[in-house]
This record gives sequence, structure tokens and C-alpha cells, in this order.
Amino acid sequence: VSGGSLRLNAQPLPGIPEIEPGADLAELMAATRLMEGDVLVVAQKVVSKAEGRVRRLADVDPSARARELAAELDKDARIVQLILDESVDVVRAARGVLITRTRHGFVCANAGVDASNVPGDAVTLLPDDPDASARRLRAALRERTGTAPAIVISDSFGRAWRLGQVEVAIGCAGLEPRDDQRGRPDALGAELSATELAVADEAAAAAGLVRDKAGREAVVLVRGLERYVTADDGPGAAALVRSREEDLFR
Amino acid sequence: VSGGSLRLNAQPLPGIPEIEPGADLAELMAATRLMEGDVLVVAQKVVSKAEGRVRRLADVDPSARARELAAELDKDARIVQLILDESVDVVRAARGVLITRTRHGFVCANAGVDASNVPGDAVTLLPDDPDASARRLRAALRERTGTAPAIVISDSFGRAWRLGQVEVAIGCAGLEPRDDQRGRPDALGAELSATELAVADEAAAAAGLVRDKAGREAVVLVRGLERYVTADDGPGAAALVRSREEDLFR
Repeated sequence: VSGGSLRLNAQPLPGIPEIEPGADLAELMAATRLMEGDVLVVAQKVVSKAEGRVRRLADVDPSARARELAAELDKDARIVQLILDESVDVVRAARGVLITRTRHGFVCANAGVDASNVPGDAVTLLPDDPDASARRLRAALRERTGTAPAIVISDSFGRAWRLGQVEVAIGCAGLEPRDDQRGRPDALGAELSATELAVADEAAAAAGLVRDKAGREAVVLVRGLERYVTADDGPGAAALVRSREEDLFR
Repeated sequence: VSGGSLRLNAQPLPGIPEIEPGADLAELMAATRLMEGDVLVVAQKVVSKAEGRVRRLADVDPSARARELAAELDKDARIVQLILDESVDVVRAARGVLITRTRHGFVCANAGVDASNVPGDAVTLLPDDPDASARRLRAALRERTGTAPAIVISDSFGRAWRLGQVEVAIGCAGLEPRDDQRGRPDALGAELSATELAVADEAAAAAGLVRDKAGREAVVLVRGLERYVTADDGPGAAALVRSREEDLFR
């Protein structure tokens, strides 16, 4: 097959082991030869573990509100407490599902608090500032390897009107999160209306297709997005958060 | 780079010209040598054109309700009429944006009615039954080439809480739309909770990253998803529609 102007390639990076708090993720990623224009999509889980965003449930003392909500939802009150601590707003609490708006502005199940792929009596929280995490990883890679691939930190989110989860960008550095195509002419010369591609989310989704969900493939290398990779770190995935006021879908 | 168990590749098919009503899309796609396990992500716009799902605005006589809504939203009343005809429910009408639930169950802006990349005084509507469109394209390819790649028909949708649009699957045939991973063990042997990958949507998103938005690259070939490609056509993208009753995000 030839003739297409663009070509996307996504493949897991080999050899990222089980991550412990304090692990040097950039060092692990630098073991692969990276190029300018590369995009590395890193699973939130390993970033959270490396940053110590792990809580032992035995250390959590749930409030009365958390206990009440937990009883309603048939959930562990300590997990509900952690979810509430991470959230600014409860969007929906019903049938065992707790959907909140996190401090970052993400609307997702359980505020990203997750017990899978965490050893023992512990859960991971989302990184405190995923865009800052992405910038730090990028800077560390630049320092070690001389090249600065773009970094996307991704998590799997459910959606409002569609079943199944997709990976989305919760943090990024060096990748244009949105490509504003409004005002550009279409193939017939007419102006395109309201086309603004969520580049970072589509990159995360492409990575989601090759990632081993059992959690052993924490980093996916995406090639073919050079035109969206920038020298500066840019606005990050914060630029993908629709404010409550702007949210016409609510 | 080696060692990753999976590798995804996405690239536009060359040589799909401007599509006229009645065009033989399968014939155009068959010009590329396809393999079993391939996935072709076809832009909704060309499917709609080939199927004659095009309306001239001069032929539309807007109702009183369409005129009223059009005045509120500062839109063309004839376009509003077409949107209402395609919809079962208005989700939101404000600030120039009309979000509805289509007959298919999709929640999107303008019910998919779109004036871009359509010549003259005309707009395209979504295919009447995009899963049936995908099945027909697959059958036609099987007949012509002896191979039956999976077909995804995609459109760009906005999202509830996130800015920017992503391509999603509005129709599919021969691709598992969702991969239910609930109950499988994670890397540490614990059961994964609520992980159900929206495969068809992630495939559409990957295609969105390489598609030329000016509309000249109507079909994207995605390789590396063989494990999700099935001999039978399967449930289609209808399996991605969350019913109003099930929609915990509302």
C-alpha cells in the first residue's frame, strides 16, 4: 500500500517492568532508541505508581458521608472516601457506579481511583498534575537521550452515550492536544465547520488498541504524528477539559 | 523497536475520488490489495454520498417548529428541519448548537447533517442504517476480491466533557465493536474491573489521525487488529449505543 500522505504506527515499548514508587520511568523508556517526533503514550497507572500516588486502604478513615454513599452503592467506604477526596463534584451516584468531576476537571468513574494492577491492599490515584508529570518525563528523556519525544499520559474512560471505554489523554507535553481546523477550506473550497480534532485523545485511543490490558505494556510508541509534535511543551491535556459552563452536552 | 506483541498501522487508501450518488465504493477500495484481518475505516460522508443520502436545501420545506428553533439558534431553518427529521430527541439547543439523539441512537451535533464537502446547495445525512452499509460494503469486497476485510464507518463526534472531536464508529461489520475484558486477570492475577474496550471507536480514532480533513482521504486501512476481526459480521456499531436508561452519565 502506498500513496497515503500519512502513516501511523503504534507499538508497545518492550521491557517496562512492574513499577515501584520512585521508579525512574524516563530511564526505562530511554532504553529504546527514540526519535524527534515520536510520541510516547504512558499508562496513568505506571506514572501514578512511580510518583507514589498509591494509598493503602488500611490508612483511610472514611467520613460519615463516604460511609453513607458506600452503603448506597455497595462499595468500600474507604475507596469512596478517596474518590471524594479527588473530586470537586459528584456527577452521578447510582447502581454501584460513582461518576465525579476530578480536581483536574475530568469526568470519569471513581475519579480514576483504581485497584487493578496494584499489589496488596492498595489503590492508585490519578497523578496530582498529569500535565506536569508529562513535562517532567519529557525533560528527563531530553536530558538522558538528547531527544524530546512528546509524552501523553492516558487512562481509560467511559463515555456519556456510548458503551465501552476508550483511552484518553489526561496529561501531555510536546503534543498539540487539539488541532483547530476551523476556517480551513474543505476539498471543494467551502469552509470546514467546527472541526477541531482532539489529537491527544486520538493518539491515546490508538495506543489503547495495542496495549496489553493485563498491565504489562505500560508505554506505547506512536510514530507518524510528527506534525503535531512541538518543541515547547504546550498547554497540555488541560486544553481538552470542557468547562462546566461551556458544556453543551450536559 | 521490537518486542511489542502487537503493532498497529494506519494509512489512507490512495485514489478514492470525489464520490457521486451511486458510486461503487467497494470497487474503488478493491483497487488496493487487501488481506484477511484488515480493517477499512470509511468516512461517513462518502458512504452517505454513494447511497444518495444527500438533500438539496431548495427541496426542504421547514415546519413552524424548525423555523422557531432556527431563529433561536441562528441557523438555516431548512437544515434544522432535516436535523429534526433525523432525530428522536433534542438533547440540547443553545448558542447555535443543536445536539440531538438520532434515530440510530447516536448523540451528536446536528444529527450528523453536514454541509462540508458537498457540492452546491446540498447537505449529507447519516446513512439510514450504517451497520447495514458496512455489511454491504464487506459483502461487495468479498465478492470482488475473495477477501473480507472488516469495515468501520466513522464520523467525527464531539464529547460531553471534553473539547475537540474524535472519530467514532457509527457502523461496522466484521469487527468486534467491544472487547469485554471483565473477569480476565490483570498482571498481578487480580480480576480487572469494568474494562471493556470500545475497539471500533479506537480504530476510528486511529484512522482520524491520518485522514486528511479536507475530505480527499475517505478510506483508511488499519492493520494489526486481526484478533478483533471476525468471519461473521457481528452486532455492528449498534452495540456501542448506550440506551437512555443505562446512561449513568446523563
